[in-house]
Amino acid sequence: MKTQHLLYFIPFLLHTMTYSQELTETEAKDYTKFVNPMIGTSKMGHTFPGATTPFGMVQLSPQTNFQVMFRDDGSYNPETYEYCAGYQHKDSTIIGFAHTNFSGTGHSDLGDFLVMPTTGDLVLEPLKTETDKKGFYSSFSHDKEEASPGYYKVDLDSYAIKAELTASDRVGFHKYTFLKSDKAHIILDLVYNIYHYDTKNIWTFIRVENDSLITGYRETKGWARTRKVFFAMAFSKPFKSYGHKKYDDIQYNGFYRKFNEGENFPEMAGKDIRAYFNFDTEEGEEIQIKFALSSVSSAGALKNLTAEIPHWDFEKTKAETKAKWNKELSKIEVTTMTPEDKITFYTALYHTNLSPIIYEDVDGQYRGLDQNIHNSDGFTNYTIFSLWDTYRALHPLFNITQPQRNNDMIKSMLAHHDQSVHKMLPIWSHYANENWCMIGYHATSVIADAMVKNVGDFDKQQAFQASVSTANVDYFDGIGDYKKYGYVPEDKNDASVSKTLEYAYDDWCIAQMAEQLGNTAAEKEYRQRSTFYENVFDASIGFMRPKLADGSFKKEFDPLDTHGQGFIEGNAWNYGLYVPQNIEHMIALMDGKKRFSDHLDQLFTMTLEDKYIENNEDITRDGMIGNYVHGNEPSHHVPYLYNWTGDAYKTQSRVRMIMDTMYGPTVEGLCGNDDAGQMSAWYIFSSLGFYPVTPGSVDYALGSPLVKTATLQLDNGKKLNITAKNQSKKNVYVSKVTINGKLKKGTSITHQELMQGGQIVFEMSSKPNKN
Amino acid sequence: MKTQHLLYFIPFLLHTMTYSQELTETEAKDYTKFVNPMIGTSKMGHTFPGATTPFGMVQLSPQTNFQVMFRDDGSYNPETYEYCAGYQHKDSTIIGFAHTNFSGTGHSDLGDFLVMPTTGDLVLEPLKTETDKKGFYSSFSHDKEEASPGYYKVDLDSYAIKAELTASDRVGFHKYTFLKSDKAHIILDLVYNIYHYDTKNIWTFIRVENDSLITGYRETKGWARTRKVFFAMAFSKPFKSYGHKKYDDIQYNGFYRKFNEGENFPEMAGKDIRAYFNFDTEEGEEIQIKFALSSVSSAGALKNLTAEIPHWDFEKTKAETKAKWNKELSKIEVTTMTPEDKITFYTALYHTNLSPIIYEDVDGQYRGLDQNIHNSDGFTNYTIFSLWDTYRALHPLFNITQPQRNNDMIKSMLAHHDQSVHKMLPIWSHYANENWCMIGYHATSVIADAMVKNVGDFDKQQAFQASVSTANVDYFDGIGDYKKYGYVPEDKNDASVSKTLEYAYDDWCIAQMAEQLGNTAAEKEYRQRSTFYENVFDASIGFMRPKLADGSFKKEFDPLDTHGQGFIEGNAWNYGLYVPQNIEHMIALMDGKKRFSDHLDQLFTMTLEDKYIENNEDITRDGMIGNYVHGNEPSHHVPYLYNWTGDAYKTQSRVRMIMDTMYGPTVEGLCGNDDAGQMSAWYIFSSLGFYPVTPGSVDYALGSPLVKTATLQLDNGKKLNITAKNQSKKNVYVSKVTINGKLKKGTSITHQELMQGGQIVFEMSSKPNKN
Repeated sequence: MKTQHLLYFIPFLLHTMTYSQELTETEAKDYTKFVNPMIGTSKMGHTFPGATTPFGMVQLSPQTNFQVMFRDDGSYNPETYEYCAGYQHKDSTIIGFAHTNFSGTGHSDLGDFLVMPTTGDLVLEPLKTETDKKGFYSSFSHDKEEASPGYYKVDLDSYAIKAELTASDRVGFHKYTFLKSDKAHIILDLVYNIYHYDTKNIWTFIRVENDSLITGYRETKGWARTRKVFFAMAFSKPFKSYGHKKYDDIQYNGFYRKFNEGENFPEMAGKDIRAYFNFDTEEGEEIQIKFALSSVSSAGALKNLTAEIPHWDFEKTKAETKAKWNKELSKIEVTTMTPEDKITFYTALYHTNLSPIIYEDVDGQYRGLDQNIHNSDGFTNYTIFSLWDTYRALHPLFNITQPQRNNDMIKSMLAHHDQSVHKMLPIWSHYANENWCMIGYHATSVIADAMVKNVGDFDKQQAFQASVSTANVDYFDGIGDYKKYGYVPEDKNDASVSKTLEYAYDDWCIAQMAEQLGNTAAEKEYRQRSTFYENVFDASIGFMRPKLADGSFKKEFDPLDTHGQGFIEGNAWNYGLYVPQNIEHMIALMDGKKRFSDHLDQLFTMTLEDKYIENNEDITRDGMIGNYVHGNEPSHHVPYLYNWTGDAYKTQSRVRMIMDTMYGPTVEGLCGNDDAGQMSAWYIFSSLGFYPVTPGSVDYALGSPLVKTATLQLDNGKKLNITAKNQSKKNVYVSKVTINGKLKKGTSITHQELMQGGQIVFEMSSKPNKN
Repeated sequence: MKTQHLLYFIPFLLHTMTYSQELTETEAKDYTKFVNPMIGTSKMGHTFPGATTPFGMVQLSPQTNFQVMFRDDGSYNPETYEYCAGYQHKDSTIIGFAHTNFSGTGHSDLGDFLVMPTTGDLVLEPLKTETDKKGFYSSFSHDKEEASPGYYKVDLDSYAIKAELTASDRVGFHKYTFLKSDKAHIILDLVYNIYHYDTKNIWTFIRVENDSLITGYRETKGWARTRKVFFAMAFSKPFKSYGHKKYDDIQYNGFYRKFNEGENFPEMAGKDIRAYFNFDTEEGEEIQIKFALSSVSSAGALKNLTAEIPHWDFEKTKAETKAKWNKELSKIEVTTMTPEDKITFYTALYHTNLSPIIYEDVDGQYRGLDQNIHNSDGFTNYTIFSLWDTYRALHPLFNITQPQRNNDMIKSMLAHHDQSVHKMLPIWSHYANENWCMIGYHATSVIADAMVKNVGDFDKQQAFQASVSTANVDYFDGIGDYKKYGYVPEDKNDASVSKTLEYAYDDWCIAQMAEQLGNTAAEKEYRQRSTFYENVFDASIGFMRPKLADGSFKKEFDPLDTHGQGFIEGNAWNYGLYVPQNIEHMIALMDGKKRFSDHLDQLFTMTLEDKYIENNEDITRDGMIGNYVHGNEPSHHVPYLYNWTGDAYKTQSRVRMIMDTMYGPTVEGLCGNDDAGQMSAWYIFSSLGFYPVTPGSVDYALGSPLVKTATLQLDNGKKLNITAKNQSKKNVYVSKVTINGKLKKGTSITHQELMQGGQIVFEMSSKPNKN
């Protein structure tokens, strides 16, 4: 977040400041007031402002535009990328409210079941009609928009409809307040998808069960190749008539011609259809909708609907969801230097409670990766595992704030493994599909981290075996070659250095598990594999560098370039510093601490030419400091690496600088994709003064806390108080750390030291402690 | 079957005669020897020669050609119609063996999971490759082909592979005997469909679970608009490698690019894909496949596979299925005048045991019309209800030969009603879909017939309510207008006379139910509705005639024409005689018995101009006698109507003539679509000497038996013996009938008289008994 952005958003900032400053001590127990779901809804944050419960299956959120991935001339439309969560704050129109949205991802899918209330002559096309008239979208303004955890409100100006949304775990709850009209409509648009909006549908199916209940499903072939979502949609008031229009050109061979299928015919099916439901409304009349999801069946969705919201009391559900949010947000109580910081903090905490999502019906049934229906026995099933992002800080954070959920998430990953025809743990999975996005097999990190921190009761032996199985699927993304050559040869598989580095780290995680289980043979094997990073280090230039199958390094090599240089979404300057399992040795390889510290200094201060960041969605100036890229994950541990060079004070100042400049309480408050909470988890950890540089170990690197104080309600019943003495915007340096009164030496802290509770005191200073 | 056809098929006939004549008395207990599944596989019979159990879910049968519904120039390809069951006897090539086939229908679908063994260089396109080379089809000859109940064998000459097929209820069992080859393949073609072969797929999904087990599913949008079929495919020998090719142009948004998805990658999905599995084979080596189906899930299919065929003993399954067939076929033991008649008879009996099919997993789970998974509680669920055809004689036959199954079929129809969003009983339903084919709501007839005959333990009140609900879905095919005007106005709905006549009959069936239940108000209401046929009778011309909403008859009217004259698949001459619920009154309307008998004489003897049978798939010269159309259902009761005119002897000679000329023991032995067994059921009844002209009443019209003797093993434990004394090809007239020695007066017999068992003796004569 740059100064210019701050200025631009002062009105909004003042608005959020106002309510936070008004809070009295007792009101302060409502932490949702410090959450602004609008943060990150501009540019690259890719967050959504809509209503959801913590880790809820429903994310009911406004969609502000259609995105075509390819324009009419076949060219790629870069705008697509902005709409990963369906909403961009810059927009002034809303096309409806969809029930599924990713939070912060860098690729997308979902957008299921777009609902839009309108009045007047029925228009069924969202943007413009065939005759070039206005589509069903509405204009709106942010003045008449409100977002808080579990609640979203907006005035749909084109129709003078007030729209309010809340949600339970599996049910979206809509409240639309109409003017008097004999032409009020609720549109259910099944054509709309996020990304490739009109090309992803496989099939849709709707039944009008009675005059106020609809059921059905949609199948899509998007990022998830074989995805099915079922629904049940209840109206608070019977519709007077209804119908649908088909937007595909599929010819049926059935005998539907004997009906007017389009109007008041209670069975609709096809690839691309939009349905509508007509009402008469009185001035100020509310029409409410409960919209339940299921991965299993429409019967499952109906079960979820009935179980979760058996009433029509919108305020009751809103209040219950708010309470759920306060339960999660209250786990870390902070005081901050500024009201803005508190908003940034609690919004980050909010963003770490959105993914993965619950993915099972109220009775525990869920659709598995094999597309069969399974029952979660002894756990809650979760989906949306953006693991290349979230293994870094989000799952480690869960080991502190959400150990029970993280345990369930690991069990969900093990179920995924069991259902996987590859016998692999998830890579990037959502909605009973593996989308294979990004690299590595970082589920092993999540498992190892929980194992060494003694979190959960998942079957450790099973988890270890699943990890070993995953690490030996030779046809997966160069693993066979990695094992054969000791590295992924660039001439056989691109992004070969990134893959080698990450596989080596993941293998170290497996070795950590093996050690825990006393399996010395496996430990030895995977410790050996964890050294493979050495094989892609070119000592002659001091950089990790792509190597070919013949053992030679790739000739043309630009360590500043992010394309074709053996890395994915990063360059050698950043991504080449990825050996979290053996940082000392990496630094030694790279000519020692001094040289390494200089490299980091240069990284943060150098000027990168434009050509290096062109055509790169994940690396933009907004998220960069010099050549350091905070806007994307490969660098997230980098500011903490000074700790290993003897220059811990540089870590302290860098992380404070990053927190101040890369995060903020405005719509542009995320400098890159939040990536299912990883970006926010970095902020939570760093704000508290430590960061899990090496998940799978019990150590956290110490940084510089941003908070004045923090109290963590730990799952073991203990409390951990963190105090930053002499905290100020200038006092970014830590002169000493005490744990329960005892001086802490070194630059790290262990999980045990956190979990035992008590007092951690950082003494802050404006002067670096160079010892 | 015309003389010329008999001559043409003498070699085949001799073949079938040979084995039937060789039978000794003990061997005769094997009734399957009298069944030739090839009957009806030529021209319009639309039967399939492959392997199935009685009412089995799997119909594993050769497919002899691809059919494109529309040619490249957009014109309709009439050849499509010939391939409703995938096989035409005239063909000399086979493209594989599919697991689902309708028997005898006049429209089509299915053809799921085409399996083809080949050798040599892999070819994945069935007809010709992109480079115009030969496709994977094989030539074959009927000399090397064998078909019997539950077993099919053919030599695939192009590859010197012997193919053998058998089946259990839910599992197809393949045995392929190869020559020595290091390029042996089993192709699983998921593109192939019957009708619209390459345009019906919605999605397909395959998992290679291990080196000898595949699972997956296919979704199609054909005649059944939203159809899902799941499978599990086990190989007796591990394949050495495998792969697939995609034939659609769908782009995924996932990240599959990191694999070579085409080869040895165990997860395949897409719209149109063909998979292959490679083997080395020794000379004479058998590779067997067990291929299980499910409507529920691939897990369900695997369960079916394991439960039904836990071994690899092909002969055992073949023998078990043969025994199942003998159990059904032995229910009617006949002696006939000629060996050919016996083959025709038992093949007809076989054809009445193919539809509807079992539609549930071994554990009772099945997919319902609402696409949710249901459990059949207290019944076996069936699908494929071609009710416009089968209510006439097939379901009445079931009330004698398959009362328990008919009871389950009615319960299946009631479940369909409960799951129907329209709250309608099935019209023409298959695979959890209503395809709305043809007219009327004849499930009411099936229910009424079972009710008056006291068959089954289905809930009569529920069945009545479901019938009433069905008869009052006003938006369905003119029902609202029918109720309003007392007829379906032709200017509002085509085929209006057919609909009026059939609704009136169906309403009479509901009245019959109401009477049974003592519901006098409803009885009165539906008796009233059952008279609506009167409203479309034009006394001025003596024909049923389309009436307009204004009460006038349609001006241009040609009672010989089948197009646009108010009838569907029939003309006024035939179809206008459809008042089975009150034949006396219909005859009275039509100027009395003499005039009516003359009408029938003319019908059978007149010469119909070619123009009247052009562009009519269901009405061809093969199935016609004069203007009488035996090849399609609307006329099936007509030959029996002489009984009501005092000229019963004409019924006797006509039905014998029809049995002799419209049926036979050759591939052309069906003169029109067998229509899921209706055509064959007509033959069974008529052969035994009686026919259910009015299902829903207990009466059967007496005709002229073709058999010499018949013994029916009734479900109530009794035996019914039918003897035709002095039976001969010439003695087609019945001079008297005795039941258990007592002279039977009149021209009908009751269900009770049949069910009490004992002896019915027809005394045959060459001279008509005109009294």
